[in-house]
Amino acid sequence: MNIAVLGAGTIGQSWAALFLANGHHVSVYDPDPKTEKVTKKFVQKSAFILAELGYLHSGNVNALRFSSDPSDAVFGCHFIQESAPENLAIKHALYCEIEPCLLPEAIVLSSTSGLTLEMLRGGFNDPSRLVIAHPFNPPHLIPLVEVVGHPTTSSDVMKQVQQFYQSIGKVPIELKKSVPGHIANRIQAVVWQEALYLAKEGVATLDEIDRIVANGPGLRWSIYGPTKLFSLAGGKGGLRGFMDHLGPSFESWWTDSGHVHLDQETLDLLYEYDGQATSLDRTALRATRDDLLGQILKLKLMKS
Amino acid sequence: MNIAVLGAGTIGQSWAALFLANGHHVSVYDPDPKTEKVTKKFVQKSAFILAELGYLHSGNVNALRFSSDPSDAVFGCHFIQESAPENLAIKHALYCEIEPCLLPEAIVLSSTSGLTLEMLRGGFNDPSRLVIAHPFNPPHLIPLVEVVGHPTTSSDVMKQVQQFYQSIGKVPIELKKSVPGHIANRIQAVVWQEALYLAKEGVATLDEIDRIVANGPGLRWSIYGPTKLFSLAGGKGGLRGFMDHLGPSFESWWTDSGHVHLDQETLDLLYEYDGQATSLDRTALRATRDDLLGQILKLKLMKS
Repeated sequence: MNIAVLGAGTIGQSWAALFLANGHHVSVYDPDPKTEKVTKKFVQKSAFILAELGYLHSGNVNALRFSSDPSDAVFGCHFIQESAPENLAIKHALYCEIEPCLLPEAIVLSSTSGLTLEMLRGGFNDPSRLVIAHPFNPPHLIPLVEVVGHPTTSSDVMKQVQQFYQSIGKVPIELKKSVPGHIANRIQAVVWQEALYLAKEGVATLDEIDRIVANGPGLRWSIYGPTKLFSLAGGKGGLRGFMDHLGPSFESWWTDSGHVHLDQETLDLLYEYDGQATSLDRTALRATRDDLLGQILKLKLMKS
Repeated sequence: MNIAVLGAGTIGQSWAALFLANGHHVSVYDPDPKTEKVTKKFVQKSAFILAELGYLHSGNVNALRFSSDPSDAVFGCHFIQESAPENLAIKHALYCEIEPCLLPEAIVLSSTSGLTLEMLRGGFNDPSRLVIAHPFNPPHLIPLVEVVGHPTTSSDVMKQVQQFYQSIGKVPIELKKSVPGHIANRIQAVVWQEALYLAKEGVATLDEIDRIVANGPGLRWSIYGPTKLFSLAGGKGGLRGFMDHLGPSFESWWTDSGHVHLDQETLDLLYEYDGQATSLDRTALRATRDDLLGQILKLKLMKS
């Protein structure tokens, strides 16, 4: 199948690597002249872990083509994964350029995390085949894709989108309503808000709170979500047993949870963290993150 | 070293297995006459994964002794891990019984998740050696221990507590202030609050939100905490780059995040989940959780 990737930043490159690994032909558009070089490099760098995860065509740069013209990039493509910058004007301009050149059956999938489908639809004369398909960084590894359609989007289109992501080994979850940030980012936002609040209150540093997450609840969340974990923790009584025991505690923690804003105090706290973190080897930390992610996904695949 | 475990429910049994695996002698008190049988069974069941994680004495039931009298159980013990039910009167009564029999250098460590140190201290004539050491379920696997001392607790006691948990392979994090729920449970609470809010709003089901967490952000949180992840996501600019790009989105998600209470609507939603989940093999799900946890921890140990 032919797939277009529009915008080849971190997200677009990662999508391209995954589509290729699944044996698809991928045409990439990005205005940056370095695109071909960096995308090929990323595809090659990620080939090993994708092969480990069972993808048979990982690293196949021969199935890649590059175009400096988005309307050329979408030529003959059934799926178009749009991963342009998070800027409504840029995305609208891009949609305007490609729309006349789309195949009649083409589906445009936006990777947007911050914009809503309602906002994006304004870029199309016929927005019926625009769907949000929000991946989680890095998209070539993390299985989640949050899918958001419009109330008028046909069930056939939604079904094709589900089947497409399932066919490439992803876990697409369809949201029944459009909400800012979809679901995963909202959950990340409340975690970070509580972390920032507790750090501002002097309960622990941001680094200590990070270690609490990664050595505590985060380990379990990589396996099951919160409701299943709590149901299993409730013994034979399930959530009823759990709530009998801890319901009032949760109510008090909900009441006591904190709020922060993007004020100078918050920013100072973040920049102080980065100041202490500058000694870290960021490239090595990213490599460890992706290597562990790949290995954890492999373990989960073997168990499923 | 001799260690006492007071209260041998899920948490106490798990602590006993871990202390034994480290070559310590463990005396267990619990009023339930089945304690000896179920604790030994748990110690044997968890022996394989603890051996896999490098503990040399896992499953050594010969180093276990049982007592139906808490003052006998603490005899000759340097550390006492109290894991009695989350009921202040029960804990106070227990402290009252053991206090006259403690070694002068003994330190009492409470596993409490919902009670604060201020509340617990009332059970001692001399509360100077009572410290909260809150594990995360299951304690024999999850590395995190949240440690909370009192402003008057000596630095020597706090240092001994840190060294003790480090010596048995845990990651103790000391909180500088006592807050309800410590840190990990507060973070779990805000995640669950947003999940329940979005389910009530009809954006997705609780089961779908679970799958979003476990196939998305949860995978990353098993490796690094939120601030490090976002700093790495910001490219060379770190958190400054990340906030330039996504700061306003986070501000809007913080504003838009939801609130729930333990009302009938929330409970109905939870019981409906459990109703659908009754077909699940809960024992098998727990076994998969603990098996994957052990394997993930092994991967992380190899990388550290």
